[in-house]
Amino acid sequence: MFSVKTPDEVVDMIYTRFGNADLKSERADLVNACGRILAQDIVADTYVPDFDRSTVDGFAVRASSTFGCSDSMPTLMRVSGRVAMGTRPDEPLEPGCCVSVPTGGAVPEGADAVVMLEHTEDYGRGEIGVCRAAAPGENIIFRGDDVFPGKTVLRAGRMLNPADIGALAAMGYEHAPVYKKPTAGIISTGDELVSAKAVPGGGQVRDVNSSMLAAALSSYGAVPVQYGIIRDDAELLRGAVSRAVRECDIVLISGGSSVGTMDATRRVLEESGEILFHGIAMKPGKPAMLAKVAGKPVFGLPGHPVAAYFGAELFVSYTIGVLMGRELTSHSVRAYLSEPVSANDGRALYMGVFLEKRDGVLIAVPARGKSGLITRLAGCDGFLCVPRDCEGFSGGTEVTVTLYGIH
Amino acid sequence: MFSVKTPDEVVDMIYTRFGNADLKSERADLVNACGRILAQDIVADTYVPDFDRSTVDGFAVRASSTFGCSDSMPTLMRVSGRVAMGTRPDEPLEPGCCVSVPTGGAVPEGADAVVMLEHTEDYGRGEIGVCRAAAPGENIIFRGDDVFPGKTVLRAGRMLNPADIGALAAMGYEHAPVYKKPTAGIISTGDELVSAKAVPGGGQVRDVNSSMLAAALSSYGAVPVQYGIIRDDAELLRGAVSRAVRECDIVLISGGSSVGTMDATRRVLEESGEILFHGIAMKPGKPAMLAKVAGKPVFGLPGHPVAAYFGAELFVSYTIGVLMGRELTSHSVRAYLSEPVSANDGRALYMGVFLEKRDGVLIAVPARGKSGLITRLAGCDGFLCVPRDCEGFSGGTEVTVTLYGIH
Repeated sequence: MFSVKTPDEVVDMIYTRFGNADLKSERADLVNACGRILAQDIVADTYVPDFDRSTVDGFAVRASSTFGCSDSMPTLMRVSGRVAMGTRPDEPLEPGCCVSVPTGGAVPEGADAVVMLEHTEDYGRGEIGVCRAAAPGENIIFRGDDVFPGKTVLRAGRMLNPADIGALAAMGYEHAPVYKKPTAGIISTGDELVSAKAVPGGGQVRDVNSSMLAAALSSYGAVPVQYGIIRDDAELLRGAVSRAVRECDIVLISGGSSVGTMDATRRVLEESGEILFHGIAMKPGKPAMLAKVAGKPVFGLPGHPVAAYFGAELFVSYTIGVLMGRELTSHSVRAYLSEPVSANDGRALYMGVFLEKRDGVLIAVPARGKSGLITRLAGCDGFLCVPRDCEGFSGGTEVTVTLYGIH
Repeated sequence: MFSVKTPDEVVDMIYTRFGNADLKSERADLVNACGRILAQDIVADTYVPDFDRSTVDGFAVRASSTFGCSDSMPTLMRVSGRVAMGTRPDEPLEPGCCVSVPTGGAVPEGADAVVMLEHTEDYGRGEIGVCRAAAPGENIIFRGDDVFPGKTVLRAGRMLNPADIGALAAMGYEHAPVYKKPTAGIISTGDELVSAKAVPGGGQVRDVNSSMLAAALSSYGAVPVQYGIIRDDAELLRGAVSRAVRECDIVLISGGSSVGTMDATRRVLEESGEILFHGIAMKPGKPAMLAKVAGKPVFGLPGHPVAAYFGAELFVSYTIGVLMGRELTSHSVRAYLSEPVSANDGRALYMGVFLEKRDGVLIAVPARGKSGLITRLAGCDGFLCVPRDCEGFSGGTEVTVTLYGIH
């Protein structure tokens, strides 16, 4: 027999057993690399910008020649030229002169500051008065301020966001090295299941888990592969698991919630690999199991959609993150419970909640009704957890609500 | 001249002027509908489940026949049959008898409770002892408990998550009606720009915004369409804007950060439509503008990547949400500032931060360095806002950090 693990023990075990998986990488087109996991450190080999650049519209000057000036005593300067955008000034700045520069324009050699247009007066005849002294470096981004050769700009393992994509574009990258998306096989088992498009006959129900888990796996960053519905038959299940393990990086078997079919799943996993645990101290989702088959994680999730959902949300998403070289973060908010929630059987209790704003305060309303109705979960905004060592929360307690949605 | 708006005024204006856009819908394959916005209320026309279903492995009984039993005085019952998964029992339950039912199996007519296997004793010879009384309804999900005809299961405007996909599968949906993704045209302007794959010559820089904004728009749920780099020429810009407005639902022009080119953008937008505002009281990002051209929103964003980024993150993402019939939510965490942050010019200040856990406490470390370096922003985990009426925060202040990433 296998001892029942707590959710934290399960997470530790996943990290320990699958944290050193060999990650394959590929090149992704820059825009499509957003949301993917960077597979290498990005070390710059160029300067960004590659020239001293003005951050304002104004006049490039030698700062020292403006020292001491003021509104009442402007420094007179000859405008010796005008820098056009996208060009580099040929001539260095002549002493006592200034050059007109637009925002983003190149500052000529010899200039070490730019005086804003607003701090000058146009005297006509190519002369201006500078009314405010400029400090050296003022209003200039120097060559390499943003990026210089040898600078590590982004580190491997980072999930690329739009600003990261911008930094890569600035350095001239058209593609980014990212880890391949793990492929995830999905097997539904159960004699009562018919496909989602079929009309269930007596005692039959539609296969909810194949679509729901495929959607969840996509949102975790994996590529789902559906292997359909397998009858409660160890031989058929053995064949499907063997094929899925060969073709995918991770496999999810859902179903087998009754004692008999669960035994079949366990037997098949025992024969094909090593069972790491069977049973998690949580509700719903207790009868989940995890095996290592040919070095790959194979989850046995309960057939009940709500239990399968929480198993995926809490442990499969974490495993996908481990396989991608990164911990996926879920987002949560703090909210006040609208009513008491009780839990009392020594297992962590997960329940869906609706979020409502009342007088500007975020209220979490537990989804009531019989446990395990998929539409009860479907309507919700997130879920909360009552820890196993807690008998519940009274109404008005501030709780953490993990939000559903894309990770 | 146009008055400068606060960020909140901008959001109100976007909602008022574009909130009644005509949304087109389409059918999406169920798995790919995850993350999309539901275009119709989903009202059930079936029962889920379509039969009374046991939630445990056990024996279906008439509850009243178990009343009064206990461990020391079990009620004797004849097991008159066994329900197989996926089948409907032909015969109603005979009085005084019970029927073996697996988890998820159909409960026969006449039974109104299921006694868990653990609360029975097997006497052999087809007889069991029931050791605990069952209440009517115990361990049964009745026909239609989850879904019944006429029940509104999901409402239009909801972003579908995996649990919603599960509910749709349970009702037999193969596709979901979702709003079309808005198409978003991206135009970069500036004589200094070269494409990301080019090597910049003197005074030139690579076009960062096209890739960065395309990635950002994808993450907001839009389909980016790149129109390339347009020289600082009103005629060329007019042509590009006209084409992009014809082909897209929203257009972003970035560039024109110097006074001259900004004038060109404004002139083109004035001629083609109505400018709604020019200037936002925020830093970076002040010179942003928004116009309504042929009924569609056209943003003029600063050319500077960091300013363009914040303009997109704060206002374009909101507009995309409005166009999709839904407010996009950004996720935030509370963290303690590692050091003081000052702001003093009456504009809301946005700055990137790194998040670190120190002794289990989340610390926000502001990204220092000259304002507006894209690699400074790229390395960060999120950003914070110092409101315009605030002079800054002292070190140790608890602040809200909006996380970068997928919305």
